[in-house]
Amino acid sequence: MKLALLLTGDELMAGDIIDSNSAEVAQMLMPLGIRIHRKVTIGDDRQQLLSQIRTLSTEHDVLIINGGLGPTQDDLTAELLAEAAGVPTEEHPDAVAHIHEWCERRGLELSPANWKQVILPRGCDIIPNETGSAVGFELELNDCRVMATPGVPSELRLMMKNAILPSLQASNDAQRLRVDKWQTFGLGESRVQQMIHDTYPNWPKEVDIGFRASMPNLEIKLISKGEHATLHEQCRNNLLALLGDNIYCEGTDSLAKVVVDLLTAKGQTVATAESCTGGMIASNITGVAGASAVFEAGFVTYSNRMKTELLGVSETSLIEHGAVSEAVVREMVTGALSRSGADYAVAVSGIAGPDGGTEEKPVGTYWVAWGRAGHIRTSQMRFRFGRAMFQRMVATVGLDLLRREIAGLEPEPQYFQRYK
Amino acid sequence: MKLALLLTGDELMAGDIIDSNSAEVAQMLMPLGIRIHRKVTIGDDRQQLLSQIRTLSTEHDVLIINGGLGPTQDDLTAELLAEAAGVPTEEHPDAVAHIHEWCERRGLELSPANWKQVILPRGCDIIPNETGSAVGFELELNDCRVMATPGVPSELRLMMKNAILPSLQASNDAQRLRVDKWQTFGLGESRVQQMIHDTYPNWPKEVDIGFRASMPNLEIKLISKGEHATLHEQCRNNLLALLGDNIYCEGTDSLAKVVVDLLTAKGQTVATAESCTGGMIASNITGVAGASAVFEAGFVTYSNRMKTELLGVSETSLIEHGAVSEAVVREMVTGALSRSGADYAVAVSGIAGPDGGTEEKPVGTYWVAWGRAGHIRTSQMRFRFGRAMFQRMVATVGLDLLRREIAGLEPEPQYFQRYK
Repeated sequence: MKLALLLTGDELMAGDIIDSNSAEVAQMLMPLGIRIHRKVTIGDDRQQLLSQIRTLSTEHDVLIINGGLGPTQDDLTAELLAEAAGVPTEEHPDAVAHIHEWCERRGLELSPANWKQVILPRGCDIIPNETGSAVGFELELNDCRVMATPGVPSELRLMMKNAILPSLQASNDAQRLRVDKWQTFGLGESRVQQMIHDTYPNWPKEVDIGFRASMPNLEIKLISKGEHATLHEQCRNNLLALLGDNIYCEGTDSLAKVVVDLLTAKGQTVATAESCTGGMIASNITGVAGASAVFEAGFVTYSNRMKTELLGVSETSLIEHGAVSEAVVREMVTGALSRSGADYAVAVSGIAGPDGGTEEKPVGTYWVAWGRAGHIRTSQMRFRFGRAMFQRMVATVGLDLLRREIAGLEPEPQYFQRYK
Repeated sequence: MKLALLLTGDELMAGDIIDSNSAEVAQMLMPLGIRIHRKVTIGDDRQQLLSQIRTLSTEHDVLIINGGLGPTQDDLTAELLAEAAGVPTEEHPDAVAHIHEWCERRGLELSPANWKQVILPRGCDIIPNETGSAVGFELELNDCRVMATPGVPSELRLMMKNAILPSLQASNDAQRLRVDKWQTFGLGESRVQQMIHDTYPNWPKEVDIGFRASMPNLEIKLISKGEHATLHEQCRNNLLALLGDNIYCEGTDSLAKVVVDLLTAKGQTVATAESCTGGMIASNITGVAGASAVFEAGFVTYSNRMKTELLGVSETSLIEHGAVSEAVVREMVTGALSRSGADYAVAVSGIAGPDGGTEEKPVGTYWVAWGRAGHIRTSQMRFRFGRAMFQRMVATVGLDLLRREIAGLEPEPQYFQRYK
């Protein structure tokens, strides 16, 4: 099945918004064994739209048009699809019913602008829109299934999931793919590739391995056709054994969500003491719904004075070893535990840059301490990134060490070590 | 000047990465008065690439190809451009010099993979790459200037800025545009449009107003041709008067950066006391380089017990008024000021959801307190967003109130009030 995507909207061409719809559509199509063959993006430009509708429908089996269904004059999709198909536009009874219901539910008067959204090419089929005012619709053109979808990401997502994917799956002769997906932290993509290559030199080509590096985490996928179920299972087991506890979840949960879930299951709590990450670890944890049951307190102690006053770090340690030292992070985490009463805590102190580095402790150096009362561990690491990425990486290390501690994983990880 | 963009790479088609390059190119071209006319994205697919190179170069004056310059076999741009132009590929002396210098600077041996990057279409001109191993190049095809650029965003950005934009500007017959850009917080796009419409019903069509809503902030642009300088200046003054202190900067600085700059200029410091935002305000401030000189401490007090122990909030207030109350945020900010010794502080407490709302205080309700010792103000607001956006909005309110307090702006803002 050859599928094309036509995106329309002046805001896409001006760069005022970044198109995330097409990546999401691609990811949703993947398990069906369908890849986007070509993607064309143009403004609200009558002539180009018509010409691309003709070209793409002629050269593909399916054409998904995204955008141009709105209530304004710029929204041309229905009108131009009718023109391309050589049919008039008219009120579509299902769309009329939808817009009446949509307005009623919101207590709104039906506006002339909304009314424009029910005028569709004669003979088209409606694709339901569960949240928005504009229905999607489908028609046949040049032996191609042309589907018009709304540009609003949440509306598109639901329409894909509930209507378009099932319909494409039913008509797709290619077999559905099995896709397993994991989130990992601590291994680089090239290292994983090398590990697989060394351990399984004859990795079967029927089971594809996919990577998506979205720093700090690395997503790893296994993809195969349904007929290779046994082989897939075997590869899955091999990969799980190879990656071990670098995998923090199967699926797409965030690391912070995994930490909150682990704590929730145990009925335990956590506190944070942050210097160089400046509250990012606390912010990541409290971004998870339900965090209030497990997050006790966060101390953002940037200055030495605050490390002493809020966490009880000794002035001697600060003077003798400096703020970025094992002694200080150990006292920070101890102070966070005792002052919050939390079961677990993590503390970080480092040099985010761009200034503040020394020869002994260059920019990117940091110390981390984590654990529970009477069981504190510390580690020194170094990351060579810009300030923003350094903070994200160190925050993620903090979260991952918490995950490992709460889950009782041993031994300590070696993050991003060179392979061999 | 009619310009097309051709993006290539399997990872773009699989949705493994979201394309931000094309939005950035569009934004960079805009001041030159050039809009992207068509954008086509395809995988590393020989036949389609060749066909699109032919079509797009025939129909446009400039074609920028992005991606496909790398060292692997999938990277086909040079080979296919040569084929389209009917010339052989050969070592380009400037590219050879570049790759030698590039390897030398990094202490690397020249690899066969790197060597592939110097084999370019005969007769092409090099476009320098200041950071990466692959040079860009340009050739003429079907009366179209075809420019091949690297997919790595940082390399593309520098190449656009230092080589491609100056070259396009020199050859562009259209006049350069003047673009003024501001960041604002607290006004919605439709409200600003309505305000402009009501106050300046005859806004001149020669001076275009552009909006980019990237919640929580709203970017506003003024765009005109150089010949309308007087009119532009007049519109600029009108817009500045209309938006007033809702503008937090001209250009693209973040709100946190503006707060840090204000504090740095005054030699003063700030502390935060956060409940529902869970450290996000602290994290935003400490994300700015140089924040360590102005950020004293952050208290993330999620539990009532911590509000009392760390900030001295009275148990009476918590029992009588609840954690989300004026009394509690007032005591939180007072505690943050006295315990940190900072000059300014902000405190927030609210119900981020999805659970925890009551009839009296539904999800989305929050109290904020801000100011300096002896000069504390409080305000209650409500935002109806999901948890993540609620936290971002409330954190931004906190930052903006700090900005206004430090800069001495009066009166208190009415964020996102309905217009009229």
